[in-house]
Amino acid sequence: MQQKGLLVVLSGPSGAGKGTVCQKLLEHRETVKYSVSATTRKPREGEIEGKNYFFVSESKFLDMIDNDGLIEWDKYCDNYYGTPKSYVESCIQDGLDVVLEITVAGALEIKQKYPECVLIFILPPSYDELKRRIVCRGTECCDVIEKRLEQAYKEMKYASKYDYLVLNDCVDNAVLNIEKILDAERLKPSRNTELLNTFIK
Amino acid sequence: MQQKGLLVVLSGPSGAGKGTVCQKLLEHRETVKYSVSATTRKPREGEIEGKNYFFVSESKFLDMIDNDGLIEWDKYCDNYYGTPKSYVESCIQDGLDVVLEITVAGALEIKQKYPECVLIFILPPSYDELKRRIVCRGTECCDVIEKRLEQAYKEMKYASKYDYLVLNDCVDNAVLNIEKILDAERLKPSRNTELLNTFIK
Repeated sequence: MQQKGLLVVLSGPSGAGKGTVCQKLLEHRETVKYSVSATTRKPREGEIEGKNYFFVSESKFLDMIDNDGLIEWDKYCDNYYGTPKSYVESCIQDGLDVVLEITVAGALEIKQKYPECVLIFILPPSYDELKRRIVCRGTECCDVIEKRLEQAYKEMKYASKYDYLVLNDCVDNAVLNIEKILDAERLKPSRNTELLNTFIK
Repeated sequence: MQQKGLLVVLSGPSGAGKGTVCQKLLEHRETVKYSVSATTRKPREGEIEGKNYFFVSESKFLDMIDNDGLIEWDKYCDNYYGTPKSYVESCIQDGLDVVLEITVAGALEIKQKYPECVLIFILPPSYDELKRRIVCRGTECCDVIEKRLEQAYKEMKYASKYDYLVLNDCVDNAVLNIEKILDAERLKPSRNTELLNTFIK
């Protein structure tokens, strides 16, 4: 009687610390797998193909859309980002939780296709701190910083549509809270119909 | 920016171990308070007035209903059970979680009046074990045992209407799972509107 895995979506403005939270979560829990996104964005320093992203050309990305190979995709700051379908679905069938780090638009698209997915919005400690982090990251030009700030504000307005909010004022706390969310979600009746049937057969 | 407390409803068939789970939960968490029910049932050995129940006459109970002093009430195995309103509401306002141990009918009534409440159904390890526990409890006559078994089966059919199922195969595990549920519930956007407003003011 194996329970299916959870489809977990992490979003949050650039600078909220999604990446660090996600990485720590994966370290804590072997049963949580990371869904590597495909993107047309150029790799940042240190980013590894197949680990951080699948870096693809725009034409290759458009092919993936046409062949129903993505469960969601979105354009963000002039680059495409998308989630390859096969890996996600095989994890869930194997009872593993799979975590996606995607934009708000992508998250809402996924919720429509997979209503049982768990949407978690990562909040920065404060708006001022977010601003500081985006500016200090320094891997982008001024233009991109301005765009990211605008985008962050827009994204935050969608936080209320998520299932859970996790304030990232301390990474360990944020990870602990996500783990509690995953455990609690697995206790929902809709994820335990087989168990219930053993009682009311 | 104090968050309101949670209204937590525990149900489950007689013999599922709700009482023990609830007691341990209260011991673990000072911020969880127990809502003492009023009942017209006769006290069992060791039960204390005002701790386990408020034991009242039928006429007194009917008065409480008339005066809107109960947030829910139900008749179960020929006795009335109900939840006094004032204690529950003051706990929630003070940011404390308040836990109610009530029947399925009462729980569903509460969900309609307080949609933000958290319904948790406690499942026994198995149906056979439940049967054994109800028979072995031995504080009731045969007639009552038969009624409780029937009622247990009926109640189990409502488990899928609850927010969460907690299998009580080990009390400590069951309590831990309930604590995770409470922590996760507090992360829902609807319980954090003030926090969200600080970001999108």
